[in-house]
Amino acid sequence: MTPLKTYLQSRCRQVDAALNRFLPAASVKPPTIHKAMRYSLFAGGKRLRPILCLAAAEACGGREADAMPLACAVECIHTYSLIHDDLPCMDNDDFRRGKPTSHKVFGEGIAVLAGDALLTIAFEIVAKARGKGRYTVADLTTEVARASGSLFLVAGQVMDLLCEGKKVSHSQLRYIHERKTSALLTCSIRLGGMSAGASSAQLRHLTDFGYNLGMAFQVIDDILDATQTSEQLGKTAGKDAKAGKATYPSILGMERARAEADRYTQAAVKAIAALGPKAARLEQLADYLLKRQK
Amino acid sequence: MTPLKTYLQSRCRQVDAALNRFLPAASVKPPTIHKAMRYSLFAGGKRLRPILCLAAAEACGGREADAMPLACAVECIHTYSLIHDDLPCMDNDDFRRGKPTSHKVFGEGIAVLAGDALLTIAFEIVAKARGKGRYTVADLTTEVARASGSLFLVAGQVMDLLCEGKKVSHSQLRYIHERKTSALLTCSIRLGGMSAGASSAQLRHLTDFGYNLGMAFQVIDDILDATQTSEQLGKTAGKDAKAGKATYPSILGMERARAEADRYTQAAVKAIAALGPKAARLEQLADYLLKRQK
Repeated sequence: MTPLKTYLQSRCRQVDAALNRFLPAASVKPPTIHKAMRYSLFAGGKRLRPILCLAAAEACGGREADAMPLACAVECIHTYSLIHDDLPCMDNDDFRRGKPTSHKVFGEGIAVLAGDALLTIAFEIVAKARGKGRYTVADLTTEVARASGSLFLVAGQVMDLLCEGKKVSHSQLRYIHERKTSALLTCSIRLGGMSAGASSAQLRHLTDFGYNLGMAFQVIDDILDATQTSEQLGKTAGKDAKAGKATYPSILGMERARAEADRYTQAAVKAIAALGPKAARLEQLADYLLKRQK
Repeated sequence: MTPLKTYLQSRCRQVDAALNRFLPAASVKPPTIHKAMRYSLFAGGKRLRPILCLAAAEACGGREADAMPLACAVECIHTYSLIHDDLPCMDNDDFRRGKPTSHKVFGEGIAVLAGDALLTIAFEIVAKARGKGRYTVADLTTEVARASGSLFLVAGQVMDLLCEGKKVSHSQLRYIHERKTSALLTCSIRLGGMSAGASSAQLRHLTDFGYNLGMAFQVIDDILDATQTSEQLGKTAGKDAKAGKATYPSILGMERARAEADRYTQAAVKAIAALGPKAARLEQLADYLLKRQK
């Protein structure tokens, strides 16, 4: 197996090249919107969701070309959600991935529209995927729309907004993290499986894996926000505490938060044991995400 | 043929019932977002786009049940675009259809998210449609995503924002209207045809009809904004002039603006002549839109 670092770099390049093909050029009229879409999409993201999508396809014996449109669609949705989350009427954040946020560069109106356009193009890209085995393009579209809609991704952001400055219980925080983070991660992984025509048992294992990995990922995000500097993170550190936002460390304490992250990671690894040696890369990615420092 | 008024009322009721079925109930968690989505979606819109979609299906011999999900999807997209257009960072409008706008009722953050959720659910609803004849669900999804994306609906809003307070030429204004209004109207009509398995010639006629009807509709909107009161319109009147926005009357003068609206309407009617007697309702709708007072 290629070393993880090489694998991640190579996947990042492939995903960037595919995104570049799917997006209109920055010069296409009106250039302002295409520049804004590309500014946030190519701001140095880790491409975690697309890479998990591709690795899940691999774990089910699928082809990269079949998974790539889905991987790119999820990245467009992730980027749209960051642009809108950073708006002054939401989290009001000035930096993201070490660069000024969209509304700081383009103004609020264009930032709203750049998010809207990225969300919209995600579905245009999904429609370029082919159905596979039991899964039709309608199934793939439904998968993406549900994970991104008012019951999951948007629901998480709504609860996050409504809970700001309030006392939040462990179960409320779990509800937010399940929807804001875990749902779209799970969706990327399921889409990878679906692009490979996964059996219903395989898809169930991938779903368990995605849920637990997503939860581990968010708990670690909370921990890093509280312990790292802004330079290390490339975004404003300590902003959760400053915004009066509940986090795993603030509710459970740092030690129990770390234990939760470990527990979720172990559950994730266990969930894909049944997928056999082809899932080795997914396991390695889960381990890597637990140990990350940014 | 049923009288137009009866037809419009009955279609409105059917569309409202279908939208009600497609949307999560207001009580579904988190209720805030579902209330906000429903507040704007059921604020008394004329359901013009869904009705045109259903009439276009009828003109091509299609079934209402096949067109209805597409009709509803377009209405969700239209409503999302109104919510985002009304935001303080865009047109900053306090009233719409005689009621306070979403951000006045729910706050800006929830208004942004309600728009996002309506845009997202539109694609979930498209995925419930069935492909017909030469058109697959992927074709239907692509049709909706293109008309709503950075080359059309979003492009129109971007240019509208960027042109505010500037001197705008007739051709720039036409560019904005083509994208902000005509593209989604044309899309509704084409989707109706596609749901009926329209031939490529039929689809070409519907496209010409949609373009010209959409342009006529927007020119008349400009005229009404300048000549009617807020009470008559159910939204802030005279706001184009106040915002320093170019309109057909402000660029061409009222008389030439009216002549443009007539010209577009006649071109629309001419475009569907080839569809024969089944298109009588589409022709009647075009005539009705030209003579409307709000």
